[in-house]
Order: sequence, then C-alpha cells, then structure tokens
Amino acid sequence: MRDAYHEQLDSVGHTLVEMAGLVGQALSRATRALLDADLPSAEAVISADDAVDALHRGLDVRTLDLIARQQPVAGDLRTLVASLRMSADLERMGDLARHIAKVARMRYPECAVPEDLRPTFARMGEIGAELADKVARIVEDQDVEAARMLERQDDVVDRLHRAVFNALLSKETAYTIEAAIDVTLLSRYYERFADHAVSVARRLVFLVTGGDE
Amino acid sequence: MRDAYHEQLDSVGHTLVEMAGLVGQALSRATRALLDADLPSAEAVISADDAVDALHRGLDVRTLDLIARQQPVAGDLRTLVASLRMSADLERMGDLARHIAKVARMRYPECAVPEDLRPTFARMGEIGAELADKVARIVEDQDVEAARMLERQDDVVDRLHRAVFNALLSKETAYTIEAAIDVTLLSRYYERFADHAVSVARRLVFLVTGGDE
Repeated sequence: MRDAYHEQLDSVGHTLVEMAGLVGQALSRATRALLDADLPSAEAVISADDAVDALHRGLDVRTLDLIARQQPVAGDLRTLVASLRMSADLERMGDLARHIAKVARMRYPECAVPEDLRPTFARMGEIGAELADKVARIVEDQDVEAARMLERQDDVVDRLHRAVFNALLSKETAYTIEAAIDVTLLSRYYERFADHAVSVARRLVFLVTGGDE
Repeated sequence: MRDAYHEQLDSVGHTLVEMAGLVGQALSRATRALLDADLPSAEAVISADDAVDALHRGLDVRTLDLIARQQPVAGDLRTLVASLRMSADLERMGDLARHIAKVARMRYPECAVPEDLRPTFARMGEIGAELADKVARIVEDQDVEAARMLERQDDVVDRLHRAVFNALLSKETAYTIEAAIDVTLLSRYYERFADHAVSVARRLVFLVTGGDE
C-alpha cells in the first residue's frame, strides 16, 4: 500500500515536469507564430493548451485524493499542496502562451509586432522557454541552487519588458495605436510567463529547504 | 477538540470574507486615485496591500496546519483546499488594485487616463468593487445562486475592456503612445480583477454543489 502511495507521489512530480515541458514548447511555438505570422503554429498552440489544462485538472484530482485517503505525513502533505500550486502556475503559463498565439492569429497575415521590436520579443520568447525547461529540470532534480539562479534570468525578462515600453515611447510617431496595444499586452504576457516560472522555482525552494529562502 | 477545529474552519471562512472586503475597498480607492490623480489615495492602496498579503499568508499556514493535524474528512478537506485557492485569487486581486494605484502614482500630478475614457474606467472600478463585495457575501452565505449570477457582471467588465480598445483605435490620432500603454495595462488589470472574483465564485459553487456547475 505504501508503495502504491509513493508511486502516486512520484507521478504527481512527473506530471509537473511534463507540464513544464509542454508550456515551454507552447511558448517557443507561440513566439514563432507571432514573429513569423505563422497561422498553423498559432492554431497548434491554441489547441494544444487543452492538454495542459487536462494534466492540471488530473493532477488536482489525484492530489486531493491522495491527501484525503492517505493522510500523508507533514512532509508529504507539504509536497502535495506545493504541487497543487505549481500546477496552477504551470497551467497559467500555458494560458499565457495561448494568449500570445491568439494575438498572432488575430493579426494574421500581418505580424502583430513592429519589425524593430521583433528581436526583443524573440529574446523574451527564448528566455521564457528556457525558464520553463529549467523549471522542468528543477522540479525533477529538486535542485534548489538552480531554482535560486532562475530569478536572475527573470530579471532579464523584466528588463526586456521595460525596453519594449521605452522603445514604444522613444519613437512616438513610429507606431500605430493598434501596435502599441498589441505590443503592450504581448510584453505583459511574456513577463507574467516568466513570473510564474519563478513562482514555481520559489515553491520548490520553500518545499526543499522548509522555508529557508 | 472538535469544537476548536470547527472554530478554526470558520475562521478560515472569515478571513476570506475579510480579504474580499479589503480588496474591494482597495479597488475603489485605486480607481479614485487613478481618476482624480490623488496621490495620498494611491499611496494608501499601495501600503494597505501588505495587510491582504499577511492575511493570505496567515490563512495558508492555518489551513495547512489544520489539514496536517486534524486529518479532516473529505468534505472539510475540499473546503480547506478551496480556501487556499480562493485566498490566492483574493491576494492577486489585491495585487491588481496595487498595480492600478502604482500607475496613478507614476503619472501624478497628471491623470493616466485620457478624459474621454474616464467614465469607462470609473464604471470598471465600480463593477470590480461590487464584484469583490458580492464575493464577500457569497463566501459568507455560501450562496450558490449569487455566485452563478456573478458571471454575468463579469461580462460587463469584458465589454468595457473591449470598449476601451475600440475607443483607443477609433481615434488613432487622439491619444499618445504613453496613454495607450497606460490605458491598455490598466484595462487589463480591471479585467483580471473581475476574472479572479469570478474564479472565487466558481470555486464556491464547485465546493457547495460538489462539481455540479
């Protein structure tokens, strides 16, 4: 009985790793869809998010079931509750990748991002996907050191986010209002994606160290 | 012992009600700060958010402690886990009100919102605060019917959110890029505030009806 229980505990961890992998792929693909005005990629991201949502719901059900039926010891309970939260973060990261894909689809066959801002968004997409991949490995290896380092990379996203606004503001006449709205929301989506990745990493640190952050 | 336990369960509910009250007040005040370019109100909202964060953290600790030590029956466990999630939604609503206050502070003594859009933002602020107040009563009374009705009011916020974009786009030359950025983010904050209110209401419906949504 205890063996089945530990298998179930492990499977919760595996689901989180799988979700992190999927949302990282979704962000890469959404960024490509956005910058190349690639409609099939946009559609693929939008429909693939259902799989992330399903993993999230399944993990919730299994986790609550484990808590209710197995009455886990304090350490396992902390792991399970942290898993519920990490899963919520990852599900939200999937939503944000989908939001980006939806902007790409809405503006197709145009590109929603003005040409001079595309390298900045390419970089935000790249770092965001890297953060998601790192989160997958951090959760898999319970790697507190890597989790702590993740925060520095989030700073890069925040800087890029501000750079987008500065670029918009520095050339007041170069952009349409439509482009300004799209770019503002898109930049916010990338920033929030990175925030949630950091949030997962923080929960892992908290879990492993017992709060010594 | 069981009595102390039920008191603690009740106190979790009371904290949620208190948080909903506080974030509703924060949104009202942030909206006033924004539309009247009222710096003291903006500062007050920004510092008051610490109290919401503290309630959120305290509720987390107490809830986990209850789950670990009391091994609640399935129904109580569902309530406690739902409370953790509602608390996270309410904490985020507080953050969003703080974000709005920060934009007000950043643009002071100017008003971040162009004059013709102020009535729309006043309405979004009003509805958002109403949603938070309703959430407080819904949680207090476990009122499924009221929770279900909440969603309709959220539709109004979504319509106002789109109206903001349409207004920005319809008068391409009337707004600066800076105003477009501010207004886009602000409108998104109000929309997300309402989304989280609906999320709390949905969790309550799910909790009370056992999933019959």
